[in-house]
Order: sequence, then C-alpha cells, then structure tokens
Amino acid sequence: MIIDVHGHYTTAPRQLREWRARQIESAGRPFTEPLSISDDEIRETIENGQLRLQRDRGTDVALFSPTAGGMGHHFGDARTSIQWSRTVNDLVHRVCTMFPDNFIGVCQLPQSPGVSPTECIAELDRCVNELGFVGCNLNPDPTDGYWTDPPLTDHWWYGLYERMVELEVPAMVHVSMSCNPNFHGTGAHYLNGDTTAFMQFLLSDLFRDFPTLRFVLPHGGGAVPFHWGRYRGIAQDMGRPPLEELLLGNLYFDTCVYHQEGIDFLVKVMGAPNVVFASEMIGAVRGVDERTGRYFDDTKPYVDAVPGITEAEKRRIFQDNALEAYPRLQSRLGVAPA
Amino acid sequence: MIIDVHGHYTTAPRQLREWRARQIESAGRPFTEPLSISDDEIRETIENGQLRLQRDRGTDVALFSPTAGGMGHHFGDARTSIQWSRTVNDLVHRVCTMFPDNFIGVCQLPQSPGVSPTECIAELDRCVNELGFVGCNLNPDPTDGYWTDPPLTDHWWYGLYERMVELEVPAMVHVSMSCNPNFHGTGAHYLNGDTTAFMQFLLSDLFRDFPTLRFVLPHGGGAVPFHWGRYRGIAQDMGRPPLEELLLGNLYFDTCVYHQEGIDFLVKVMGAPNVVFASEMIGAVRGVDERTGRYFDDTKPYVDAVPGITEAEKRRIFQDNALEAYPRLQSRLGVAPA
Repeated sequence: MIIDVHGHYTTAPRQLREWRARQIESAGRPFTEPLSISDDEIRETIENGQLRLQRDRGTDVALFSPTAGGMGHHFGDARTSIQWSRTVNDLVHRVCTMFPDNFIGVCQLPQSPGVSPTECIAELDRCVNELGFVGCNLNPDPTDGYWTDPPLTDHWWYGLYERMVELEVPAMVHVSMSCNPNFHGTGAHYLNGDTTAFMQFLLSDLFRDFPTLRFVLPHGGGAVPFHWGRYRGIAQDMGRPPLEELLLGNLYFDTCVYHQEGIDFLVKVMGAPNVVFASEMIGAVRGVDERTGRYFDDTKPYVDAVPGITEAEKRRIFQDNALEAYPRLQSRLGVAPA
Repeated sequence: MIIDVHGHYTTAPRQLREWRARQIESAGRPFTEPLSISDDEIRETIENGQLRLQRDRGTDVALFSPTAGGMGHHFGDARTSIQWSRTVNDLVHRVCTMFPDNFIGVCQLPQSPGVSPTECIAELDRCVNELGFVGCNLNPDPTDGYWTDPPLTDHWWYGLYERMVELEVPAMVHVSMSCNPNFHGTGAHYLNGDTTAFMQFLLSDLFRDFPTLRFVLPHGGGAVPFHWGRYRGIAQDMGRPPLEELLLGNLYFDTCVYHQEGIDFLVKVMGAPNVVFASEMIGAVRGVDERTGRYFDDTKPYVDAVPGITEAEKRRIFQDNALEAYPRLQSRLGVAPA
C-alpha cells in the first residue's frame, strides 16, 4: 500500500476562498455566514484533481488536510482561527467521507499569535474523535513570517503535546503563508520552517519529556539532510546526545523533494527508517519537468529509482513509516507495519 | 592554488569582545576608547589557529573577515555599526598585513536596521581602496532575526550594489547572530538566510539590472541544492527564465557543507562552475568527526574525494571560481583563471 502523508485540499471550490475573504474583512464584527458548497462541486474538484493524480501515479491513499498556506493564523484573533479551522476541517471531512478509500483527514489547528496552543485542543479532539482524523498540522510560526511566538520546544506548547500523545496523533510541522516580504512562501518560508524546527528539537529534551511524540518534517526537512554533517558536529560540540538517540526516533522526513538526485540523497543520508512518502500534491510545484516528462511533484518514481533501494526499504517509506507515525491509520486501513 | 573564500577571525584576542561589550553598553553616550591589542597577541591567535589549520590542511590562502556572528547589526544605531565595523575591519587588516601570503581581507559592512545601505559605501571604499580588501559580507537581515528590512532585491539596496560593481567586489550573503529565540544562529538562521536570499534572487531581475554583480551563498546555499527541482519547478510555474540564465552566472555556492555525501551532492547538482571552495574555519563546527577522524570543517578532502571529479573541476572549485567571483584577487595573487 502506498500512503501519501502530505496532501492538501488546494483545489477547493472558489466559495471557500470567498467565504474566508469575507470572514477576514468582518474583523471583529459577528460573521455567521455558513459556507455553501455542494457535494457535486466537491466531487468535481477531487475527481479532476487529487483523485485523478492519485490514480495516474499509482498511489493508494493520501492524508488530506486544508491548504497549509491558507491557514493564515495571523489573521484576526483566536476566534477567527477557530471559526476558520472548524469550517475548513469540516470541508476536508466531507471529502474524506465521500472518498473514504482515498483520503483520510489531517486537521488544521486554530492557532493564533500569542495565544496558548492549549486553545487548539478542543478542535483537535473534535477532529480526531468525531471526524476520524489521524493527525494535525502544527504551525511553528503563527505570525506567518515574523517568528515572535516561543520555539516549539518551549513549555508553551506542552499542553497540546500532552493531548497529542494521549490521542496518538502526530503533527506535521508546517508553516503557513508568509506575510513577510523577505520570505517567499513555498520557496523560502516553508523550507526555513522545517530547518528551524529541526534545530529547535536538537537543542531540547522535548523527546525525553514526550518519548512517543512524533513529528513529520515536510519538504524533506528543509536544509537538514544536506547539512547532516553540520548538525552532527553542532550536537557533538554542544555535548548533546547522538542525533539517532536524541531525535531520530521521533522524526520523519517526507519525500516532497522534487528531483531524483534529492530523493537519492535523502534516502542515503537519513535512511529508510526516517523517510516517509509524500508528494504535497496538488501544491507548491504544479508543472511538468521537461527533463523527465513527469510532474515535478510525482515523487513515487523518484523513490522507485533510488539506486540500490530494497523492497523492504520501499515498504517502510511507502507504508510502514506512515503507519508508525500515524498509529490511528492502522485500524483505519486494516494494515499493520511489518 | 587553493583559495578558501570563507574564513572569519573568530579567534581574536578577548580584548575585542570586551571592547565591543563596552561599546554596546555605552549606548548613546560617547565611546572613544581605542582597541588595544598587540601584534604578538594577534600573531599567537593566528599561528595557533587559522594559520596552523591552513598548513595542516594544505590550503594556501583564505579570504578573511570579521566573525559573521559578531557583526550584530541590530545593536545600537548606525554610528555604533560604523565604529564597530571600522574597528574590526582594521583588526582583520592587521592580520592580513602580518600574514600577507595567507590572508586577504573581506570586510564587514556597517549596516543598521532601517538605515539605507548606501551608508555602508564609505566603509566599503575605505576597505577596498585603502586596505586592499577584495570583498564584503552583506547581511540580508540587519535586525538579526526579525527580517523587517526590505528584501535584497529591493531598490533599497541598489546604491550599494552600484558601488560594488564599480569596485569589482562581490558580497558573501551572510547573516549575523540571531537574537530571535526561534532561530539558532549557525544551525538555523545561517541556513535560512542563504535559502531566503536565493529565493529573493529567483523572483527578481536583479542580475539583469546588474549583470556583473556577484554573490557567494555560504554553507552550500542553505537548502537550495537539496531542493533544486523545487526551484526549477517554481521558476517554471511563474514563467521565470531558466535558473541557469536567470542567476547562475552571478551566484556561487560555497563548500561549507560538513560531510562527504553533502559535498558529493553539491558538486553533482550545482556543477563545478558554481561551487567555490570554503571551510568557514574556525567557525560553526569545531570538532572532529569520529566517522572520518578529521575535522568536520576540513572540507578539502571531501572535494578531493567527490566520485569522478576531474582535475579541471577541482581547479575551478579550488581556484578559478574564486578568482572569477573576486576579480581583485587576480592581481593580488598574480594568477588568472584558466
């Protein structure tokens, strides 16, 4: 089974964007308008979008969440984020209900700058317990580009982590849009977020405090694998434990790296036990690479073509690591890791 | 000849740090204390530090600049930065004068948040014309972790670029310390700075406006080579020119990547014409890698061991690209690129 842990509902009908724009404009005034999208409209976007590509590419199921760039946690206040998150998580749930074999929900959290992450617990509970979601996306920078909230390893976040552990759901550490003109979203802020989070983990004892807390670092972990020697050296200079022991039991690097050399490198350096299959489709890069004739984000052929990769390694990357990172997937899919 | 384009005077005698601490404390009040360091003290730090390592490692000459993390452009105001930059650039000049065969100066610029980069021109002129320096370090984030100044491609920076072009000096794009608790300096802020700058270049027509402006991206360009497919795809989606045409004629990626697999990958993906030798020593990582028995930042053996690398490619990486990026080096060293 091929599980793609990183898919977003980027193709949602335009009413969603329009609703969100009106919600943001309402700033402070009551906004009670329901989102109106029909089942047929949803079906059309999925059948002509993610489901078609899933079939074309030969993957089986995607963990599906609201558009990461659209989380926009800096807009409005905590109530704005709660209303928006409930709305868009419900929409993702409708997709997952209509296509239960192909999409399993991962929720957006109603984060807001300066607001305790424990305020997200109610929505996480709702999505997991009522909607059957198996994970969440956690924004390490709710300011969307100014990074003024505490690092992910601060006790500020611990209440949320306690609940994640109780629920057995991991988080993908994923920033949202950038409203800082220095940072392009998908070309800088996303990768910087991944790199930043990893280094926070390296400096902390977070995984001693939460031995079963698990995170997925998207986009191959940003700059991390390319600088693995740097990280091993920094950890050693600081007297930190070896990285394998300190954090590799709790982190996965996804395969949203859009060229063969990059995937070869990711698997070689991090090893199959820490790599999890993902495509981020339909997302950051939508075109066809003229060098290969395939979509840049069609990441399965890259994994298949890694020199010397074994069937056991492919099973880990395509299936078992996802089942391990997202324990609730096992009963949902009726499969267990090897 | 083996030219290391990335060395910092991180071993300067303690009087430098103490002087700087008193300067920062003086905030707003006149501070006229001279820096007092003897030639013998300088000689000791260099002979037991960078020069010894240069000899041990078989490299010939290093481009030498003040400690990047120490630039601390957010402290005080523009006058603070001018005084500090003159002081520390003069100290680097003393090293270069005492060891003229081994170190050639690269200056720190007196940047300050919200202050026009043209205010740096006088110090750049002084360092190049009076002290014989061949390049400068340009901080893309003078706030040291909050990124509130304009992107490097904004016209805000153009006056400085005009002067760099006239003087024929490139800049290494190098952030300084991070005072944002989210960003570890050498483990996150440095790499994020490299990634961020590259994406700014990709979005702009900077190199159409300044065809001979050249930048070195340190630390292998942060996340960029690992995500080269992503960048090719984003550029294509946006209708930008191919990256080779858009920016590879103006950018070099240095070899401050501290493991064999990383250097193999860098050379494979970016190609020898865009890779320039550097070690960042004595700097971010100071220990010995038990896997190799060599210093993590001893980067020459990695380049020598790249599978299939030719002598011509090594000559580009070790010498010719530096001579091309830093044209003033040619007369200083009496050598020309092939």
